[in-house]
Amino acid sequence: MESQAIRIFGIDPGLRHMGWGAVELTGTHLSYVASGVISPPSNGALADRLALLYDALEDRLRMLAPHEAAVEETFVNRDPAATLKLGQARGMALLAPARLGIPVGEYAANQVKKTVVGVGHADKKQVQAMVKVLLPKAQFSSADEADALAIAICHAHQRAAKQLGKRAS
Amino acid sequence: MESQAIRIFGIDPGLRHMGWGAVELTGTHLSYVASGVISPPSNGALADRLALLYDALEDRLRMLAPHEAAVEETFVNRDPAATLKLGQARGMALLAPARLGIPVGEYAANQVKKTVVGVGHADKKQVQAMVKVLLPKAQFSSADEADALAIAICHAHQRAAKQLGKRAS
Repeated sequence: MESQAIRIFGIDPGLRHMGWGAVELTGTHLSYVASGVISPPSNGALADRLALLYDALEDRLRMLAPHEAAVEETFVNRDPAATLKLGQARGMALLAPARLGIPVGEYAANQVKKTVVGVGHADKKQVQAMVKVLLPKAQFSSADEADALAIAICHAHQRAAKQLGKRAS
Repeated sequence: MESQAIRIFGIDPGLRHMGWGAVELTGTHLSYVASGVISPPSNGALADRLALLYDALEDRLRMLAPHEAAVEETFVNRDPAATLKLGQARGMALLAPARLGIPVGEYAANQVKKTVVGVGHADKKQVQAMVKVLLPKAQFSSADEADALAIAICHAHQRAAKQLGKRAS
């Protein structure tokens, strides 16, 4: 059985608020490491806002040195301009770990909710409550931060399930 | 009058094919510098494909050392999944110059066509023909490359018009 601690860095992409959260998986035990939100000033040029998001993400990844990262698959709504903005922010969330050689998992929003809460259509408050149950030491002040931790938890569960599968076979 | 050569790097964003083209503006004279297309393998993980696009763009920017960059505003079509992909690629096109301290201009596709061809609804062949007229030494083998040069030409025209405006006032 794998007993070495695996550090996982979850990212909830957004141009205005990029949530991030790191957890540690030791065997099947999960623990909280750190979390936060990166919010670039909303009045700058788009290219500069993206650069600020990227640099801040890279900074946290270098500091926390996770083994793996996980990014939520952005909800594709009916507003194309909003989807394009989210796509640009999501590009930063995928690029930062990839350029540091950290493998990145991608998870759909309802898959994250199903793993953490048990149902795919859970609301934000249910997600926050379950993150607090699964990570009692977690401290977060926004939904973006809780979502990022939920994404990291989802990746950890998928990983643990794969390890159990390997042992069983 | 400004007689120093200003090097401009145009980018036509795309996940499969990222076109780039550099021109030089000396006063009101335009000349071709270089152009190409970056095409990452389409079978890799999205994060790795984005990292390849970013690294290749950064490499060309460092090599050509432009003073300014220009990126096309991605056409927002009705397919949200395609818009999200374009957004991610466009994030790379904006980030690479921004992180090197190169100012980035953004231009709508019809603005680029209007500047280069004279009408906003020009087709790809008309754009390619006019790029060849405006930059006789240009060598390009794809529409993405010609589009990137057209974006650089558009930025150069906007810049020259601003300079003329400054002199007149």
